[in-house]
Amino acid sequence: MGKRKSAALAAKSEKAEEKVMAKGKQHIKSPKRAPVENAESMAKRQREISVSEFFAKNRHLLGFDNPKKALLTTVKEAIDNSLDACEEAGILPEITVKLDRLSPKLKEPEVDAAAKDSGEEKVEKKGAKKGPIPTERFHLTIIDNGPGIVATQIGKIFGKLLYGSKFHRMKMSRGQQGIGISAAGMYGQMTTGKPMRIISKIPKEAKATFVELKIDTKTNKPEVLTEKETSWPHSSKSGTSVEITLEGRYQRGRQSVDEFILQNTLSNPHATFHFVDPDGQKFDYPRKINELPHLPSEIKPHPYGVELGRFHQMAMETSAKNLKKFMATDFSRVSDKVADEIFKQAGVKDMPMSKATHEQLNKIHEAIPKVSIMSPPTDCVVPIGEDLIVDTLKHQTKADFYTATTRSPSVYRGNPFVVECALAYGGELPGDEQMTVYRFANRVPLQFQPTACATNRVLTKMDWKNYGLNQSKNSLPTGPIAILIHVASVWVPFTSESKEAIADYPEIKQEIRLAVLECARQLSLHVSRARRAAEAERKANYIDTYIPFIGEALQEMLKLSDPQREKVVGTLRNTLEKAKLEGN
Amino acid sequence: MGKRKSAALAAKSEKAEEKVMAKGKQHIKSPKRAPVENAESMAKRQREISVSEFFAKNRHLLGFDNPKKALLTTVKEAIDNSLDACEEAGILPEITVKLDRLSPKLKEPEVDAAAKDSGEEKVEKKGAKKGPIPTERFHLTIIDNGPGIVATQIGKIFGKLLYGSKFHRMKMSRGQQGIGISAAGMYGQMTTGKPMRIISKIPKEAKATFVELKIDTKTNKPEVLTEKETSWPHSSKSGTSVEITLEGRYQRGRQSVDEFILQNTLSNPHATFHFVDPDGQKFDYPRKINELPHLPSEIKPHPYGVELGRFHQMAMETSAKNLKKFMATDFSRVSDKVADEIFKQAGVKDMPMSKATHEQLNKIHEAIPKVSIMSPPTDCVVPIGEDLIVDTLKHQTKADFYTATTRSPSVYRGNPFVVECALAYGGELPGDEQMTVYRFANRVPLQFQPTACATNRVLTKMDWKNYGLNQSKNSLPTGPIAILIHVASVWVPFTSESKEAIADYPEIKQEIRLAVLECARQLSLHVSRARRAAEAERKANYIDTYIPFIGEALQEMLKLSDPQREKVVGTLRNTLEKAKLEGN
Repeated sequence: MGKRKSAALAAKSEKAEEKVMAKGKQHIKSPKRAPVENAESMAKRQREISVSEFFAKNRHLLGFDNPKKALLTTVKEAIDNSLDACEEAGILPEITVKLDRLSPKLKEPEVDAAAKDSGEEKVEKKGAKKGPIPTERFHLTIIDNGPGIVATQIGKIFGKLLYGSKFHRMKMSRGQQGIGISAAGMYGQMTTGKPMRIISKIPKEAKATFVELKIDTKTNKPEVLTEKETSWPHSSKSGTSVEITLEGRYQRGRQSVDEFILQNTLSNPHATFHFVDPDGQKFDYPRKINELPHLPSEIKPHPYGVELGRFHQMAMETSAKNLKKFMATDFSRVSDKVADEIFKQAGVKDMPMSKATHEQLNKIHEAIPKVSIMSPPTDCVVPIGEDLIVDTLKHQTKADFYTATTRSPSVYRGNPFVVECALAYGGELPGDEQMTVYRFANRVPLQFQPTACATNRVLTKMDWKNYGLNQSKNSLPTGPIAILIHVASVWVPFTSESKEAIADYPEIKQEIRLAVLECARQLSLHVSRARRAAEAERKANYIDTYIPFIGEALQEMLKLSDPQREKVVGTLRNTLEKAKLEGN
Repeated sequence: MGKRKSAALAAKSEKAEEKVMAKGKQHIKSPKRAPVENAESMAKRQREISVSEFFAKNRHLLGFDNPKKALLTTVKEAIDNSLDACEEAGILPEITVKLDRLSPKLKEPEVDAAAKDSGEEKVEKKGAKKGPIPTERFHLTIIDNGPGIVATQIGKIFGKLLYGSKFHRMKMSRGQQGIGISAAGMYGQMTTGKPMRIISKIPKEAKATFVELKIDTKTNKPEVLTEKETSWPHSSKSGTSVEITLEGRYQRGRQSVDEFILQNTLSNPHATFHFVDPDGQKFDYPRKINELPHLPSEIKPHPYGVELGRFHQMAMETSAKNLKKFMATDFSRVSDKVADEIFKQAGVKDMPMSKATHEQLNKIHEAIPKVSIMSPPTDCVVPIGEDLIVDTLKHQTKADFYTATTRSPSVYRGNPFVVECALAYGGELPGDEQMTVYRFANRVPLQFQPTACATNRVLTKMDWKNYGLNQSKNSLPTGPIAILIHVASVWVPFTSESKEAIADYPEIKQEIRLAVLECARQLSLHVSRARRAAEAERKANYIDTYIPFIGEALQEMLKLSDPQREKVVGTLRNTLEKAKLEGN
């Protein structure tokens, strides 16, 4: 019935589109031929593209595709930075997100079911000609109690793309590229012309610094409009507040700011969040644990993951005096013994770095894979933990079975990573919908591009029919099941700068698969246990129901006394119970 | 049977993985706490990230995820550039791709069915510890007969990321970012340490220029090792040859270099391709038409698509003397009359650019959406054409029904674009497999990330059951059907710099949907026509089969003579034939 109805609706909406098509389908005019170019005329137009210009034009790469997502991305980048800063400084995070609407509230857009499902806005159906998409204007304020930023760095941190402390190290953190927050500011500036405003206080200064800045997209440099001392208007002894005015769209529900903050409270139970929505409603999420997660440590690159080009560069930049020292200090898991082994394989002797030729470095690099080297240390990746991810899933679902697993760390391209998986089944989970998948990377909820994610590749390729679920080819299974996957790494490879989906590295997919399989196996046990329990229950009911009658029948047939009958019934019951148990 | 077998296999492979899991699943050691940071210690580590460093670390964003894809991406970037250059210079392209293997040939890797399906390499199942993935080393040479590059530009074009002529204009071309070929060279350099070698000749010089260069990734600048005059070793009067030595993996089949070149011959019937594969086998694909496609023209930005930030920047950079001239010359579709209308809405008078305040520019920008402005000119986007895309599909499939449509151009974010779709059905297309989708953007075949592509979002959301195909929720339909979609635009928005999938703009999805619907409607007509023909055939057979018997029965019952019987049978046949026709 439901299906027939939706087919009818589809047919109807296609009718409606026919008009558009009739209008849209016209004969294409034969275009004029553009002037022919030559090498000289082309050379005149060849020039440098600043990284800000690049991302301004390609802003969908950073998650600024549409007004709704732009608003969320801005909140996300600010929260990521605040959490990272607090944790690195050993501070339990307390973060306030405040959204003020500066323009009239738009009506909730009409969305069709399919678009709603994927969180997209409906496109107006009126052919090519139309004005810009209507948006709302917001003033976003995010305040944290982090360590603050030293005054001289504020300009570059917020006013320059590709600037930061996280890119050049191998350490697990939410931010990694030095693009996010400055890109959010740039988006605000592009859409409203307003500068970013930053107030930051470090503990050793009594006063805070206030900076108002824009990004010069031509040069990718901060243009500081105001910089002055100010008092820190919050109770924490240090912290940073960031204000961005931007065009956006505020809607609740899936892929919303609300949902993002809620999911953050689940993956960061040590953080307190406050959210004031555009209608002035205040939501408080106090922290659930008063202890910071283990701080991940920074590691050196593992020789197996270092390509020749980088190897040469490291050799050029090292402070080590000789080759052996270089190998032993600039790489992880290279002891003097391992270095000797590599040199032996390469036919190269230890020598001062300045003496080592290009050719000798090539030989050393070539010898590396021939030597067995221990896997990189893995205390640099910190999982959330099985208990906490099950809790997270319990917050999101009402199921009657939960299981979780944290894999031990593994390595891709020299980067350690760890995968965790939690699974919920049954209970109030809808049996006729596709599996719900919650994805996290370095504790950050991933809300977009689920089908582009490595998790999806794994989940759709698994055979879920083995676990009693329905599944069509290359699809997620249908049934009362939800899965949470967390990938933590010193460098999570994403499919784009907006960090929405995990890229397709075979090693990562393999670990995801094994984590999901472990949970699925528990599910399988649970399902058959439940089936057995139901079966036993059914049999027990038979016994309880029929035995008294059998007793009476036997009493009549064999002329038994009441006590005799009781005894026979008792024996019978025991025998049957025993048979039932053995039967399983 | 097939299903049962695959389930058994799945169970078996899970067994095999159990060992890995047992090994992988260990207790995570409690990590040491990293030293706590403060604002000062963080500041010391904050620094600039060069765009080359960024893309070297994030090379999967550029399509260098794994050796096989890296090889393909390198070929692709070089071909894209050659085709663009030839067409801009009005030259019928002739391109030679030569792959020399420099290392021993590796055995074809063992791939499981699922991995084969998605073109991925199988991950070795032995837990965390393992050496680098084995690769092959290639020397790639790509030679074109394009206009050549002036000597002074060669360094920057090939030795600097984000440099080129295509980014700052609004014109349809294959390349657009100024990243591709230099990134390919950088990848070669990273994996083999070898420089790029370029020879280029322009028509007006007798000699060619030879340049050997590396990229300094720290600064994103070319490091020229050799630059000298040389003779052009080819017969064309101008052209460019590029040589890159790189690690890669050569495999035939899906997502291979071979397939990419073949698909290019289909979307570029005006180009001749030669390919010499690593085994020395030579493939020639002579051009099929001797005429260049219409050259797309460059356009100015449309006011509706220009955000405030860009508007201010354009105002700063314009050579126009006054506001009205600025509006009328720097934007498309702004006549003097439209400019007056905008000024009236904004409450601003025309004035010299130097006098215009920030506030006045804001008001003008705010007024733009209130004025009705014609859609941008669309001769800037050049479709392949319905006949040619059907031909392309005919080359790839043996179906018994083909249809195609080219939509009229539309606009997203101020950028004109056009969508074309071709559909093949029936014939030798397998009925039990998912729809095959061929994707092209600005004539470039897209071979990766199909599920991340806007085309996939559209195709999986459509109700294909209406067209007699099987389909499960959110999946492509199953049946004997293949679809080709081409999106052409002055700026195709991709989901990542590797330009593998089209980003999710509602306007683009809408046009794709309408194009597919047009083809699907033709399919629907074909299917019902075929059904009617089959039905008529069946009825005709009934008539032929049963009428003689009916005639005999009537003859016996009514004692008819043979001529009488013949007459009755004739009348009956006519009546039935007529009924059959009317019945339809």
